[in-house]
Amino acid sequence: MPRADAQRNVDALLAAAKEEFVSSGVDVSVRAIAGRAGVGTATLYRHFPTRADLISAVFHREIEELLATAASLSESCEPGEALDRWVDRYIDFVATKHGLAAALHSGDPAFSGLREHFEEHVAPALQTLLDRAERAGLISPGTDALDLLGAIANLCIPPPGSNDTSRAYRMVALLLRGLRSDAARSMAERPSP
Amino acid sequence: MPRADAQRNVDALLAAAKEEFVSSGVDVSVRAIAGRAGVGTATLYRHFPTRADLISAVFHREIEELLATAASLSESCEPGEALDRWVDRYIDFVATKHGLAAALHSGDPAFSGLREHFEEHVAPALQTLLDRAERAGLISPGTDALDLLGAIANLCIPPPGSNDTSRAYRMVALLLRGLRSDAARSMAERPSP
Repeated sequence: MPRADAQRNVDALLAAAKEEFVSSGVDVSVRAIAGRAGVGTATLYRHFPTRADLISAVFHREIEELLATAASLSESCEPGEALDRWVDRYIDFVATKHGLAAALHSGDPAFSGLREHFEEHVAPALQTLLDRAERAGLISPGTDALDLLGAIANLCIPPPGSNDTSRAYRMVALLLRGLRSDAARSMAERPSP
Repeated sequence: MPRADAQRNVDALLAAAKEEFVSSGVDVSVRAIAGRAGVGTATLYRHFPTRADLISAVFHREIEELLATAASLSESCEPGEALDRWVDRYIDFVATKHGLAAALHSGDPAFSGLREHFEEHVAPALQTLLDRAERAGLISPGTDALDLLGAIANLCIPPPGSNDTSRAYRMVALLLRGLRSDAARSMAERPSP
């Protein structure tokens, strides 16, 4: 098979797997993923011998997108807006992809490397946005990106027996207001120019 | 057995069960609980025929204490301090009694009534503290107690593979600052007397 075709299959499988994980969780059948990608299960298994390989590949791609979003928001937006928009993108990642998040936080050794990869790459990307907002006087200093990522992920856990994600957005907004409140207070104390 | 002795056994069993649940989770052996209470397992089973009965009884007592704390803080403290101190007490309840919290949120039908009992009683107690703080101009209006209880409970979930509760306290403090920030900003805009 030509290389370009193989890459096309991989792309289609990753996109299909992501959609199936979002709608049905990480335990969705391999057949459903292959069907959505328009390939046979043999092709799926050739590229991703185990379910963990596929989950891992989807996760790596999601992380790449979170990093690319952080970089582009840093270039195109004011520090406060960049932070807010990136956090929205991250909530989206956690809240809608709860099946993936469950695998990430399952403590299953098959995914322990994934969690480290996530922490090693996503935390510095958020830290860059936080540092930029701090230098602009928008947030109080000393906020730890890893703490914040964990707190936001926890706030995205829906109430028992519910799929309501609106509470997640409201409560994360409250958390971000808290992050800004000390800085806002000290700004308010400065004399007007 | 005289009634007072029976009540003494119940009290000892509830106190022992609570301590064992805190240190070992709700799956701790019945023998360990009876041993700590200084009674035989037959006595334990006479008062609490199933494990669920015992978990339920411990939970009801904990809820009574949360309600009593809310009432006494309302009488003895300023609105802001009462709110902060009650939330600290609640974090304590959730963060240290994570085994109990897991049962509460397990979706197990044996505990579904407990969750309702919790929501029906604890949410109004917190709402009273929130309304009082709102009337004092300390927090922005419209905060839902049930949302906040859920968000705080989620923030108390420790990072994967860790028992660190310090993040919970830091992140809940941020959430409470967020709750106060809008009110603080509108206070700052008022002319000084």
